[in-house]
Amino acid sequence: MTGPFGILSPAWAGTSTARLMSEESILRAMLRVEAAWAQALADADQAPAESAAAIQAISEDPAGAGIEVEAIAAQGPGGGNPVIPMLAAVRHALAQSGESDAALHRGATSQDILDTALMLLCRDAAAEVLDEARRAGAALSSLSQEHRETICVARSLTQHALPTSFGLRCAGWLDGLTQAIQRLQLAAAALPLQWGGAVGTQASLSDSLGAQRTGTLTADLADRLDLRPMTRPWHTQRQVILDLGSGLAGLLAALGKAAGDVLTLQRPEIAELREPAAPGRGGSSAMPQKQNPVLSTLIRSAALSAPGQLSTLYLAAATAEDERPAGAWHAEWPSLVELSRLAGGAATHAAELFEGLVVRPDAMRANLRLSGDAVLSERLMARLGGSFPGGGKALQDLVRRSVVEAVPLRGLLEDQLGDRITAAELDELLDPLQYLGRAQEFIDAAVEEFAQHSATQHSATQPDIHPPHPDQTLVQPEGSTDHV
Amino acid sequence: MTGPFGILSPAWAGTSTARLMSEESILRAMLRVEAAWAQALADADQAPAESAAAIQAISEDPAGAGIEVEAIAAQGPGGGNPVIPMLAAVRHALAQSGESDAALHRGATSQDILDTALMLLCRDAAAEVLDEARRAGAALSSLSQEHRETICVARSLTQHALPTSFGLRCAGWLDGLTQAIQRLQLAAAALPLQWGGAVGTQASLSDSLGAQRTGTLTADLADRLDLRPMTRPWHTQRQVILDLGSGLAGLLAALGKAAGDVLTLQRPEIAELREPAAPGRGGSSAMPQKQNPVLSTLIRSAALSAPGQLSTLYLAAATAEDERPAGAWHAEWPSLVELSRLAGGAATHAAELFEGLVVRPDAMRANLRLSGDAVLSERLMARLGGSFPGGGKALQDLVRRSVVEAVPLRGLLEDQLGDRITAAELDELLDPLQYLGRAQEFIDAAVEEFAQHSATQHSATQPDIHPPHPDQTLVQPEGSTDHV
Amino acid sequence: MTGPFGILSPAWAGTSTARLMSEESILRAMLRVEAAWAQALADADQAPAESAAAIQAISEDPAGAGIEVEAIAAQGPGGGNPVIPMLAAVRHALAQSGESDAALHRGATSQDILDTALMLLCRDAAAEVLDEARRAGAALSSLSQEHRETICVARSLTQHALPTSFGLRCAGWLDGLTQAIQRLQLAAAALPLQWGGAVGTQASLSDSLGAQRTGTLTADLADRLDLRPMTRPWHTQRQVILDLGSGLAGLLAALGKAAGDVLTLQRPEIAELREPAAPGRGGSSAMPQKQNPVLSTLIRSAALSAPGQLSTLYLAAATAEDERPAGAWHAEWPSLVELSRLAGGAATHAAELFEGLVVRPDAMRANLRLSGDAVLSERLMARLGGSFPGGGKALQDLVRRSVVEAVPLRGLLEDQLGDRITAAELDELLDPLQYLGRAQEFIDAAVEEFAQHSATQHSATQPDIHPPHPDQTLVQPEGSTDHV
Amino acid sequence: MTGPFGILSPAWAGTSTARLMSEESILRAMLRVEAAWAQALADADQAPAESAAAIQAISEDPAGAGIEVEAIAAQGPGGGNPVIPMLAAVRHALAQSGESDAALHRGATSQDILDTALMLLCRDAAAEVLDEARRAGAALSSLSQEHRETICVARSLTQHALPTSFGLRCAGWLDGLTQAIQRLQLAAAALPLQWGGAVGTQASLSDSLGAQRTGTLTADLADRLDLRPMTRPWHTQRQVILDLGSGLAGLLAALGKAAGDVLTLQRPEIAELREPAAPGRGGSSAMPQKQNPVLSTLIRSAALSAPGQLSTLYLAAATAEDERPAGAWHAEWPSLVELSRLAGGAATHAAELFEGLVVRPDAMRANLRLSGDAVLSERLMARLGGSFPGGGKALQDLVRRSVVEAVPLRGLLEDQLGDRITAAELDELLDPLQYLGRAQEFIDAAVEEFAQHSATQHSATQPDIHPPHPDQTLVQPEGSTDHV
Repeated sequence: MTGPFGILSPAWAGTSTARLMSEESILRAMLRVEAAWAQALADADQAPAESAAAIQAISEDPAGAGIEVEAIAAQGPGGGNPVIPMLAAVRHALAQSGESDAALHRGATSQDILDTALMLLCRDAAAEVLDEARRAGAALSSLSQEHRETICVARSLTQHALPTSFGLRCAGWLDGLTQAIQRLQLAAAALPLQWGGAVGTQASLSDSLGAQRTGTLTADLADRLDLRPMTRPWHTQRQVILDLGSGLAGLLAALGKAAGDVLTLQRPEIAELREPAAPGRGGSSAMPQKQNPVLSTLIRSAALSAPGQLSTLYLAAATAEDERPAGAWHAEWPSLVELSRLAGGAATHAAELFEGLVVRPDAMRANLRLSGDAVLSERLMARLGGSFPGGGKALQDLVRRSVVEAVPLRGLLEDQLGDRITAAELDELLDPLQYLGRAQEFIDAAVEEFAQHSATQHSATQPDIHPPHPDQTLVQPEGSTDHV
Repeated sequence: MTGPFGILSPAWAGTSTARLMSEESILRAMLRVEAAWAQALADADQAPAESAAAIQAISEDPAGAGIEVEAIAAQGPGGGNPVIPMLAAVRHALAQSGESDAALHRGATSQDILDTALMLLCRDAAAEVLDEARRAGAALSSLSQEHRETICVARSLTQHALPTSFGLRCAGWLDGLTQAIQRLQLAAAALPLQWGGAVGTQASLSDSLGAQRTGTLTADLADRLDLRPMTRPWHTQRQVILDLGSGLAGLLAALGKAAGDVLTLQRPEIAELREPAAPGRGGSSAMPQKQNPVLSTLIRSAALSAPGQLSTLYLAAATAEDERPAGAWHAEWPSLVELSRLAGGAATHAAELFEGLVVRPDAMRANLRLSGDAVLSERLMARLGGSFPGGGKALQDLVRRSVVEAVPLRGLLEDQLGDRITAAELDELLDPLQYLGRAQEFIDAAVEEFAQHSATQHSATQPDIHPPHPDQTLVQPEGSTDHV
Repeated sequence: MTGPFGILSPAWAGTSTARLMSEESILRAMLRVEAAWAQALADADQAPAESAAAIQAISEDPAGAGIEVEAIAAQGPGGGNPVIPMLAAVRHALAQSGESDAALHRGATSQDILDTALMLLCRDAAAEVLDEARRAGAALSSLSQEHRETICVARSLTQHALPTSFGLRCAGWLDGLTQAIQRLQLAAAALPLQWGGAVGTQASLSDSLGAQRTGTLTADLADRLDLRPMTRPWHTQRQVILDLGSGLAGLLAALGKAAGDVLTLQRPEIAELREPAAPGRGGSSAMPQKQNPVLSTLIRSAALSAPGQLSTLYLAAATAEDERPAGAWHAEWPSLVELSRLAGGAATHAAELFEGLVVRPDAMRANLRLSGDAVLSERLMARLGGSFPGGGKALQDLVRRSVVEAVPLRGLLEDQLGDRITAAELDELLDPLQYLGRAQEFIDAAVEEFAQHSATQHSATQPDIHPPHPDQTLVQPEGSTDHV
Repeated sequence: MTGPFGILSPAWAGTSTARLMSEESILRAMLRVEAAWAQALADADQAPAESAAAIQAISEDPAGAGIEVEAIAAQGPGGGNPVIPMLAAVRHALAQSGESDAALHRGATSQDILDTALMLLCRDAAAEVLDEARRAGAALSSLSQEHRETICVARSLTQHALPTSFGLRCAGWLDGLTQAIQRLQLAAAALPLQWGGAVGTQASLSDSLGAQRTGTLTADLADRLDLRPMTRPWHTQRQVILDLGSGLAGLLAALGKAAGDVLTLQRPEIAELREPAAPGRGGSSAMPQKQNPVLSTLIRSAALSAPGQLSTLYLAAATAEDERPAGAWHAEWPSLVELSRLAGGAATHAAELFEGLVVRPDAMRANLRLSGDAVLSERLMARLGGSFPGGGKALQDLVRRSVVEAVPLRGLLEDQLGDRITAAELDELLDPLQYLGRAQEFIDAAVEEFAQHSATQHSATQPDIHPPHPDQTLVQPEGSTDHV
């Protein structure tokens, strides 16, 4: 939200997504749209090639043509959007160099330019976000496999519940990420051209070029910009923006959940994880013993900022009145830019976090031991409850007594069961590794699903190859799986 | 948000979606999940059939078994969720009637029951919402075609911009609705079973049934409940909830946009539309001349409530810590219920609104005439600007003079152009019907797309038939269309 | 958001605030406003006393007069709000019993009735919320004092930073609560009557009673309802609602922060706190060793729900168009009700939580010891850094070495400093109790401020006694305090 | 949210508030805090004067000392906030010039610096916002008085309800603004210093300076920075931020409501208002007849963005864990900055809008006439209903018939009433100016309240003069007013 450098936005400061969303970059994207349209017209002999070439030249070096982002921004309030002063500046530049503006902005409205420019930037931003998210996913995939049998305690309502494996925890984070990646990828691959003219009828173009040629040239423009063709103008039908915003916010939620867990697990009393160290990161000169989990902190801050930004997009869509709105459209831009930057920052930090995550199996085992054998009470209840002297209720009481009095449960069990159970049987019963359920299978499936998905990663930039719908990859009927 | 009758929620009071989301209904859904699981176990000879039958009987008549929603709700705070007191009540009822609880809740955790019950309710609610939304869409489809040449003024930043047709305006509303329906349908069709046990490993079930049978039975349970099979437990990976919430909020945004337009167009000074009258609706005894646009008002109020509710879902997803969360999960429930009710109410009111919408072509023409011929200035600039005496600038000035001095533009044009233009040419040039661009084509395409989509409407309840991805139906490369 | 029992809202189910906000209660409040106005008119000889008495009787027993909340709610969509069908039902009841409706609803508009009824309910709800919040504050006040020297570790970015006292932590929670109570109390004490007539001019009343008498009677009505007098009608100026909503959400934030800390501190690995046990609370039959921190969980879930609800109130205020709005007003009601219920539930649970909180000084000391003497590195740097062999940098390195190599820092210091420091000096230097800064002073001041504030607690219901502005009690110039 | 120039934020681009919140300005504010503290220490002989002077010099010309905002921002992610790299840069600069850093950052933590710097900026931003808001208020005050008898139609649920005066409408906008100004002024005047050290105990300072002197110096620092003294550190008690955010969002809501009305009233079919024209504002080259209401559009866009940003602040407050939080604190900064900029932009545009608003009494009268005499039906029902032939019901029917059949109501009344009413009586009865209720009194009171308030406008920067509580000025018991 601050910019351009992000002195108050360390969540994204210095990332390439932030650069992509800089004001300079936004200006260039708008000029790029104008240039592509001029060229499309010229190539179809509908506008002078010289004019198109001049516009192209300006779009490649706006500063050289005297078009400065600061001046354009300052004049934005005059017309309510930056396209109007930008066009005046381009016309001025063309006039200065004696070129015609005949190919400029023909039949377009300012919303066509700005919406399309934002689609270009959001598409590129999403590609970057997705690259980083896949990098984070690959790291989680490795962690899931490497730690598939690294035993640790699973927590429910903050309390120790049952054993799990750290690999499964990572697979859960990966699952969240894979699903979010799928949504964002679909949304990004569907970003369309906006080209409706003043009120969404393409009246001006159709009047001069004919409806058919207008259609052809519109499709050509989408092609030149590598955007999805437009079905109809969507000046006040903003589902595309909602899809993109939801995709970005969903990714931030998935990363935020994982980062929140890392923050908990890096608490000194828990100490199961440690963020990767790096020079200049997380240290404190006043308290040299302290190492701050900065990556997780920044990811979490980004995740906390997303819901409010997303709500603005939905609100804007719900209040987009008439053929082109007075305020609702304008409210979208900063939220869309900020969500992109936040997702870019969070994904980048997450990739670094998971690639270098220090895992401490010893601490995990130690924490699990804190709850003693009682952490397997669910299993004991199921296995022994029926035959226990006094029944399940008596066993329950025994478990509670072991906790309250801090007496080892095994001893209490031995006292009660005597020779009804052997030491070996108790060993087996109380072995957390033997009570992980389908963890291994779930890990394999999560890793496999991410891998399948990663293989289709380029589809985002190949709009003609439709990525499979998430459900098609997500949902495997359980019954058909080969269980171990 | 209030309930059960909705005295402060006229947006959804009295709708079937509201009944579906009643507390009684929620209790029944939770019991239904327990009963289905007991039956699945019994059918696989993993639990006593008598116990399963007894549970089934209770689920069908909870009040008869002494299980009252008020008491369950009152005990909710004790365990943090309603499943815990519900199970106690079921156990009590079983004991009272001398039945075994051996088939009850085996291997499940309370989140499995509540998440799955909510999926059942949300699936049914979405089906109702979609039915009503399709009804609204069908009405918009008819309006689009009927009024394809009903000329009116298109507005940009609240001001008159160019002519359009009322049919195209309706087609725009329809486009928004079609897209929203697609998203919601996909999200609803993907709602999965939740079945992970205490920490998402299915350890208890696997321990007693074996992993493979656990997988099979889990798939069987999804099948019995007509939910998508679960790939993995998703206790803290909430993308499914986000998809559903985004789908509902997107529909509310699309309907809210249209309702906002109707509110504007029903203002007495504009008077292009009128809500359908009905006994007891919109009247005022103190001001008998007044007819309030109540349907649009309620739709708009629902749309304004959605973004905040949606933000809570994203926030909850981002803060769902550990294997099962302490608070984030709990915060989801009311927002999910309320979004469903709001969408149900808004869709129902929208169907009634559009089916009975009174359209006033005369008022539309009169409003268009307010701007005089100047509303075609874009066309005049393009057609005459080049050859105009004094050039485009002179023509611009002429248009502005006609507006400022309220002088008919046609007369001014005749003065300036003399015999360079014939009356017939001017007639044609100033005919708004001849400056609608691709409106007819866009209307046809919007209607066709909705029709195609409506034909696939049953896929939501047939999880094995994958609905086409929205992009596949939404996006038709422009160049390949047969233009008129 | 669900209701009336709250099966999906354990955060407030069963609380008196929830009962206060029930649909039945809302209906009664609306009737109470009608009755009070009828009585005010009758007492001023402006309406027949019999009619007023009959209305009063109906308001006291609506069901007896055949006015049922379910029917009123079901008819709400007809007029967009519940006042319209309620009036029809009252007129019907009056007619049935042969009474005149001459005193009914005279000169009022439905928004007058509903806004005023909500103010009555919100005032009463706030009083309950504040009572519970003060109860929580009193408990925190005791904890602050009792544990003023209970040493524990203070955490920054989740890591151990410096020693603090648990009393100061409680005083921080108390500070947040005291400030939130002040805001909510001020907002609640300022809730005004709404009485503007159809468009906020009081034209109808002024026309029949004269402007002066209208003013007098309006003030009288506020007095009868114990609401602040209205300065002007505020049908579309919603600052009062925003103040109330912000007050409730601020309280939820303060409680949510504290509950989040309790959740962390009750983690088994940290174990510094434990929620009070109660029969039927927090237990798990499947995992008998587990005790869930249910109170904190519910408080946190309420706190996570608040920001979205609050955003709806601000959005509604920003879009309240014309003299009376079509949708924005309607969107306010459920969010206002839900915020009240959430605050009521959270405050009630917080009072119980803090009154019974189990504090474990041993665990606090043990956790502090985890960081060894290095937790005092800030002090060491300041005291020894200048004179240390090799300077501050060498001391920094020593501290880091002690952490990385897990070597006791004291030994390393003794090695380096030799006889430049005595054992007694080192003892003193490394004593965390001697490095608590102004903790005691801060605790006293926080406790004192809460106490002062609690003494003014009745001002909320005494609108003529203006409570001191928060700043006046909050801000004591530091320099003027008597430091220990 | 974009920056620094605001190419996508025309709502605030080019305003002084935006410049105040620039990244450069934020850097300078942080340095200013460091310099003031160094000076406070030096003046109390607690730090070398040379070091303090050197820090002061750097703070006045950071670029001259090689401290560039871009580099600081880029290093922000390393420590999670910009203070850490800024301090490194200052130390480097001091070392380069051979100066000691002995006076630098002593006993402070990075949150102390950044929170305090934001308080400085927010205080200054609020002062600017308030200046512009008061300018807007003064304009509304004039409009209220000038148009106190300018008759127009009041609208309810978008429909014509009763007559009102345009002056009263302006007084309503003014009321909203006055209340919002009061809240923001109070919040801004209460912004305190943050000075707690690493964990909010001021341990380091107390250890070296003693607790009393620490208190005195802390108060001195607040005084130097012209901030309210701190009662206690508020690292994780964020009510101050919530008050400020609510104040800014409340102002945006009040302005957004008014701007929304202007947008409606400037619609060509209504045309009661027109935004002031200015060169380069609101024009369209392609559609020269069009004049866009750009100021209202930008104000509305800002108002729509506020609720989401505010929700982030409440969320951050509710999740600020431990003694200093990992993410929640970080999420606050951009939302606080953006709310300030949005409020600054909206207030500036509102001042210009209302100072130059073109009012069209003719159009207002014409619109009122659209509803004919029926717009007075409320009065007719009250005055004639009782004695009307056939009673009130018959009169109601007559009014409806006049509307449905578009027959003048006066004629129908004359037909029915014959000589029971004279023409003069009918004239009087149907004169809208005689049915404005207490409009004049309300206008006077609103203007007077704003005037009283404006007179106290400097209190924001005079923390020792406590502004009256809003209730004290807002609420005048109605009964005590001298009615006309």
